[in-house]
Amino acid sequence: MKLATIRTTGGRTRAVRVDGDTLVDLGLADVGELLARPDWAEHAARADGGAVESAGFAPVVPRPGKVICIGLNYRKHILEMGRELPEHPTLFAKYPEALIGAYDEIQLPPESDQVDWEAELAVVIGRRVRRATEAQADAAIAGFAVLNDVTMRDWQYRSPVWLQGKTWEASTPFGPYLVTPGDLPGGTRPSLTLTGSVDGEVVQRADTADLVFDPVALVRYVSTILTLEPGDVIATGTPGGVGHARKPARYLAGGSVLATEITGLGRSESKAVAEPVAGAL
Amino acid sequence: MKLATIRTTGGRTRAVRVDGDTLVDLGLADVGELLARPDWAEHAARADGGAVESAGFAPVVPRPGKVICIGLNYRKHILEMGRELPEHPTLFAKYPEALIGAYDEIQLPPESDQVDWEAELAVVIGRRVRRATEAQADAAIAGFAVLNDVTMRDWQYRSPVWLQGKTWEASTPFGPYLVTPGDLPGGTRPSLTLTGSVDGEVVQRADTADLVFDPVALVRYVSTILTLEPGDVIATGTPGGVGHARKPARYLAGGSVLATEITGLGRSESKAVAEPVAGAL
Repeated sequence: MKLATIRTTGGRTRAVRVDGDTLVDLGLADVGELLARPDWAEHAARADGGAVESAGFAPVVPRPGKVICIGLNYRKHILEMGRELPEHPTLFAKYPEALIGAYDEIQLPPESDQVDWEAELAVVIGRRVRRATEAQADAAIAGFAVLNDVTMRDWQYRSPVWLQGKTWEASTPFGPYLVTPGDLPGGTRPSLTLTGSVDGEVVQRADTADLVFDPVALVRYVSTILTLEPGDVIATGTPGGVGHARKPARYLAGGSVLATEITGLGRSESKAVAEPVAGAL
Repeated sequence: MKLATIRTTGGRTRAVRVDGDTLVDLGLADVGELLARPDWAEHAARADGGAVESAGFAPVVPRPGKVICIGLNYRKHILEMGRELPEHPTLFAKYPEALIGAYDEIQLPPESDQVDWEAELAVVIGRRVRRATEAQADAAIAGFAVLNDVTMRDWQYRSPVWLQGKTWEASTPFGPYLVTPGDLPGGTRPSLTLTGSVDGEVVQRADTADLVFDPVALVRYVSTILTLEPGDVIATGTPGGVGHARKPARYLAGGSVLATEITGLGRSESKAVAEPVAGAL
């Protein structure tokens, strides 16, 4: 089952089930509101509320309570950099203001000239859990979606911790849709090909089965620390190939098109544009 | 003007104006809901909705959209450690699940044995701003409150960035109340004495005028990155005296009482208790 939050021609949003080319109305404003219902899966599966006309994809969950990002999580990439596999995951945050829909423009702020890409598999939570067992963590995963943790490297490295490079407004494509685990090879530990491309050139490629900490392990780990709620998002980390590590380094420029694709989860395609700011150079 | 979110005997919350011993009902569920009104200051000032009986303080804003924390921000402490003053503030996040009321118990999770204190001045946002000018940043500050950024040091240092030590559920006293800048010496750049005590012994003491990045500067800086919304919180950093830096190191234990006080902003007093977890040792 594919679920999305779409914008309507009336300027609102709507949760829909994506049946091929048909967007079936679920009677709710967005996927976050859907997942807050304990019966969300049954509700979404049985809906036949008629088709909705789409004015584009909103972020899959437009206002998650929490977006938790993971660093350093692709085995092959860590080993090829000569590092040891980490004992614990690296966690950092992103605020919901950063999220954009799958085909929205990425805003390049005048304050940064090092806007980089990080293609990622995102986990969306569908059930409240704290200190989840393996079975509880598995059951808490509503599904998966494409996300690109677009990062302002100059700001990321202004201080010892990364937050200020990770949460710029309207920077992070999330979607187009969520796919439930039953529709994916590997289920809640999916084995899917993740690809990031800039202007048609593949810059990142990995199999999501190469994660050091897989989605179930991450739900268990994060839920040790605090309660995960329906609609919360865990972005599971990016493989090698980011622009900052290239020689010479490479970043998004005005007009760059960043595409992020995961087999079975669809594709986002985001044009980077200079953010219009009054008084900016 | 002092504003608080109090718990009622019916198990709900209520925004109130604190007039000495009287809690005047503002007709809204909490201070976050109040601040979302463009006329919040006038509404709160003119309210005479009768007195509310309190069953205790909730966090001043129970569910801020964002809690943004600042590291390394007390001038004297940075210099006495032999470091240079930072060029940019250090930003990290805390999720709202961490917040507790001023007299709630701090949960000591069985997974950590290094639970430490960080007494801080918190800024509460009262107006939406992005790329705020100095005047806009000043006007966007609704007020100030006491916060203690309680930190699990063992988890903070598990990975290169700090989030996982900073956001444990029910760890972070916030309140008792918010005080508007007009009632404080120094206004939006207040000069107040901040004190942290453990079991009656003062362990941290500083003047909030010693901040390297003052509240107005922080609002400007953070709003460069993303939009600040009413109810958002910026915790401005802690001075020297944390337990982890002591020789020998010192942490909260079951029964420890952590008091955090700022002149004019009142005091939180939180007993640390072992969190009851099924199956925990």
